[in-house]
Amino acid sequence: MNPLVSDAFVDFLVADVLDVEGLCRLPKFEGHGKETIGPWFAACRRVAREVLAPGYRAIDAEPPRLVDGRVRVHPKMHDAWRELVGLDVIAAVHQLPLTVTTLSSAYLMAGNLSAYGLAGLTAGAAHLIEAFGSGAVRELFLSQLRSGEWAGTMALTEPQAGSSLADVTTRARPVAEGTFLINGAKIFISGGDQDLTQNVVHLVLARIEGSPAGTKGISLFAVPRRRPEGDGLVDNDVHVSGVIHKIGWRGLPSLALSFGDEGDCHGWLVGMPNQGLRCMFQMMNEARIMVGVNAAATASVAFHESVAYAKDRKQGRALGNADASSEQVPLTAHADVRRMLLRQKAIVEGSLALLGLTARFADLSVHAADEAERTRAKWLLDLLTPIAKTFPAEKGFESNALALQVHGGYGYSSEYLPEAWLRDQKLNTIHEGTTSIQGLDLLGRKVVAGGGAALLALVDEMEPDLAKSALDVSVLRAAVGQVSEVTAALGARGAEGDVEGMLGHSADFMEAMSVVVVGWVWTKLSNAVAGRDDDFSKGLRTAAQYWLVTEVPRVDALLKLCVSEDRSYLDLQPAWL
Amino acid sequence: MNPLVSDAFVDFLVADVLDVEGLCRLPKFEGHGKETIGPWFAACRRVAREVLAPGYRAIDAEPPRLVDGRVRVHPKMHDAWRELVGLDVIAAVHQLPLTVTTLSSAYLMAGNLSAYGLAGLTAGAAHLIEAFGSGAVRELFLSQLRSGEWAGTMALTEPQAGSSLADVTTRARPVAEGTFLINGAKIFISGGDQDLTQNVVHLVLARIEGSPAGTKGISLFAVPRRRPEGDGLVDNDVHVSGVIHKIGWRGLPSLALSFGDEGDCHGWLVGMPNQGLRCMFQMMNEARIMVGVNAAATASVAFHESVAYAKDRKQGRALGNADASSEQVPLTAHADVRRMLLRQKAIVEGSLALLGLTARFADLSVHAADEAERTRAKWLLDLLTPIAKTFPAEKGFESNALALQVHGGYGYSSEYLPEAWLRDQKLNTIHEGTTSIQGLDLLGRKVVAGGGAALLALVDEMEPDLAKSALDVSVLRAAVGQVSEVTAALGARGAEGDVEGMLGHSADFMEAMSVVVVGWVWTKLSNAVAGRDDDFSKGLRTAAQYWLVTEVPRVDALLKLCVSEDRSYLDLQPAWL
Repeated sequence: MNPLVSDAFVDFLVADVLDVEGLCRLPKFEGHGKETIGPWFAACRRVAREVLAPGYRAIDAEPPRLVDGRVRVHPKMHDAWRELVGLDVIAAVHQLPLTVTTLSSAYLMAGNLSAYGLAGLTAGAAHLIEAFGSGAVRELFLSQLRSGEWAGTMALTEPQAGSSLADVTTRARPVAEGTFLINGAKIFISGGDQDLTQNVVHLVLARIEGSPAGTKGISLFAVPRRRPEGDGLVDNDVHVSGVIHKIGWRGLPSLALSFGDEGDCHGWLVGMPNQGLRCMFQMMNEARIMVGVNAAATASVAFHESVAYAKDRKQGRALGNADASSEQVPLTAHADVRRMLLRQKAIVEGSLALLGLTARFADLSVHAADEAERTRAKWLLDLLTPIAKTFPAEKGFESNALALQVHGGYGYSSEYLPEAWLRDQKLNTIHEGTTSIQGLDLLGRKVVAGGGAALLALVDEMEPDLAKSALDVSVLRAAVGQVSEVTAALGARGAEGDVEGMLGHSADFMEAMSVVVVGWVWTKLSNAVAGRDDDFSKGLRTAAQYWLVTEVPRVDALLKLCVSEDRSYLDLQPAWL
Repeated sequence: MNPLVSDAFVDFLVADVLDVEGLCRLPKFEGHGKETIGPWFAACRRVAREVLAPGYRAIDAEPPRLVDGRVRVHPKMHDAWRELVGLDVIAAVHQLPLTVTTLSSAYLMAGNLSAYGLAGLTAGAAHLIEAFGSGAVRELFLSQLRSGEWAGTMALTEPQAGSSLADVTTRARPVAEGTFLINGAKIFISGGDQDLTQNVVHLVLARIEGSPAGTKGISLFAVPRRRPEGDGLVDNDVHVSGVIHKIGWRGLPSLALSFGDEGDCHGWLVGMPNQGLRCMFQMMNEARIMVGVNAAATASVAFHESVAYAKDRKQGRALGNADASSEQVPLTAHADVRRMLLRQKAIVEGSLALLGLTARFADLSVHAADEAERTRAKWLLDLLTPIAKTFPAEKGFESNALALQVHGGYGYSSEYLPEAWLRDQKLNTIHEGTTSIQGLDLLGRKVVAGGGAALLALVDEMEPDLAKSALDVSVLRAAVGQVSEVTAALGARGAEGDVEGMLGHSADFMEAMSVVVVGWVWTKLSNAVAGRDDDFSKGLRTAAQYWLVTEVPRVDALLKLCVSEDRSYLDLQPAWL
């Protein structure tokens, strides 16, 4: 059976890399420790393997349907939802360290990303209402979301605006203290309707009449599909105007929604007027980390599938064996197949570890005892988040393609699952900020934040791990130095007003930083098994070695490009294409 | 309307890069020239744009069905087939230079790869029978295949053997002069059955009883679905045992076939006994070039779709414009979108030009007047073929993913076509020899062929183009030198018996060689527009510039890896994963 995610690796992260025990000594996580976290992982693994994964293929094959204006999801989504609610995952996200739920959710996502996606969105909606809602709003919505009785969504995107939230046009007209009439259209709303819960609460970005243009005039509203009135729920004028036929995540409906077609759609303000985007962005790091986890999980399940296939499938003979009457050998006997497997391992486990480390900084940024430590953790969290979102999504797609490739002609058929996971994966470079946007965020904001304090903190974090490595990390060390130099040079361009010259190669910068950061992560992982000689440790050391020799040497050319005078696509005119 | 492939670029290749006029002066192509080739391209473009492309979406949505043991293809496949037969494409492949049909077929593949795939397979079967069949066999099959009255297939792969043709077990028992009873199972047989033609001729690899094990005991047979008997056709005991549910190429059925379940399947020997693989491999260069063309075509149609989308779709504002009341700008106004478009252009047009050049060497290898020129062209053809197959397939997949990415959330839906072309593309790294196999072929055979003569010929071919370039080709020049050095060093390892040390990094070597060869191709293309200042020329120059600064600097690290002592995945044990 496909393990979805390696237990040995996750247990190793928890025990030997992420110091989860240390986190549990923080006041916020009092009462947690091995005795609660062990059973939590066990429960997630059971649900992922025994309920979610077995239903995945059927759910992928039959996406949701629109019947009489309402969405019906696959029957197996009902089973999955029931189990997730039984696990209490929505509430758990707020009780356990993010470091823990990041890793536990990887199992659930690898088992069935659509079902977990709905839980994650609901947790996000609950979190926003908890953090910014008035007492009355919390009273109306919070307990039902926490319990999974109702579900939540994020309704940001509009057809004409896409990634440009400044161009949101959905309107809100005040009708009473804190409540508004909402009118507008949203698109790509995941879980925007379903027949799993009796109600759905949409967290909607809209513009209160008279607000300024752009992002400064956007407010956040809780807009339920059915609103509480009297003792019950009445229809709140939210309608499904279309179903997007997605190529993956096919259990989770993605919808076009219209709000207030009949002038009777009520929304409750969450947070202060015109502060909607600020509220939403306070959740952004977590949301992006979760996309990264999804990407790592989706690559992980395919990785394990391809390892099992390659061990089992016999094909050809070893190089130089011309004896055609000899037995065929397993695919793993071919060096290039082992390369494809090791590369997947390096991407998958490098991603999971990076996400664990990033989540740990998220925990510390809020809950560390010491303010200086919180500030430092926040720098690191902000800096690592775009990488922890993008690297697993971009390289995860490559990893998923390799898993398909290992399956040969069979991989090209829907009789085998790698093609489905490949389709699932492609969303992760798009949603919650495309790769382009992450690159601009990383280079334009994050690495230059605090006048270089964030990057300095990262280098300080890396140094001790590099210093104690038994591997040859000289190229990585040089790359770390080069990152600092290039960042300073680009920052100077920006300071001189040459924004294009600073950001033109943001994609290359993102790639270089990702390779370096994952190089550090692999160094750290191999340090943690120093002196050990079991199969698990050898595997980690080999993957670390692979990353250092194969990927890290590429950084030099990438970073040189960032500060080069190359203007190829900067000067490109559309007519030249 | 999507042009599928750029006419301006193809016309430029024909006129200014590939010297098609010169080819037409060779005796074999007598009678051809502008006056025949112009109308040929016009006819292919018309069919591709007016018949094939408009049917693509419907055909992708409804794959072939198995009804009462026979396969029914989509009704629009019938239209497509009729038009392709009307074009006379199957025969054209043998009359026009491959240089021309390589480019013309790109339009047809970009319009509907499944329909053209069937024509290509039929042309391949006809070609094999023409080249190796006895008079009687040619008489039985050739004219019907040429006319498209019957279709042909290649039936090589078996379930237990996959890429390992040495393990083919289908048997052939002689029953009369040149005819045999065939018995065995084949899988992944494209076009293995359909309701387009009244008969299908399978070119089957099988083992004559008593033949040696391995590749030396394999023979080639023409095995029709219905065999000529008396005045008509009778059933020949070939049965469809399964339909593969492919993720792309969904107009073209891919089948599991069983031959001779009832002991009544007759096959006609093609070529000499036990020479089947040799016959097949004589077609291999062309078959692999055609996979490359398919890959380039599939990336091309998506590239043009994404260019049109990016020019049209308004989204956000230029960097530094904080005025949210200003108009949104087209996607092309964003530097990173232009990067994604330019990268696609570099891959698509670099691939097409490489394929044109490789096809030209194929033409010269057979038809050049001078023997020395034929020999030299054959070296170059053999050397370039694995690259011309693999680069478009591997980088084309990246290019197709970028086309989807440019479409943002819409790209993730099947309302838009980029996702379909992405699915189509993935096959090209698998069929006709996986990327792993191409890497071993390139490094293990092709670059060391003739004691280095092949590589020397390639370097000689590159030199004049590099010498006259107005671009900075210093890094490319160094890379070319490095390729020779590394090849010599690896060849020496092989000569010393260290086959694993020679071939361990064949994937890295393939990538490095591809980048260098395409760097040369772009240099050549930019030379051909030297001094011109129109949009078309600026576009080519910019793409050349992009490739030289972005990709070529990566070669150094890749080639160093090939001769490094890294043994990460070489030493990897399956248990370490």
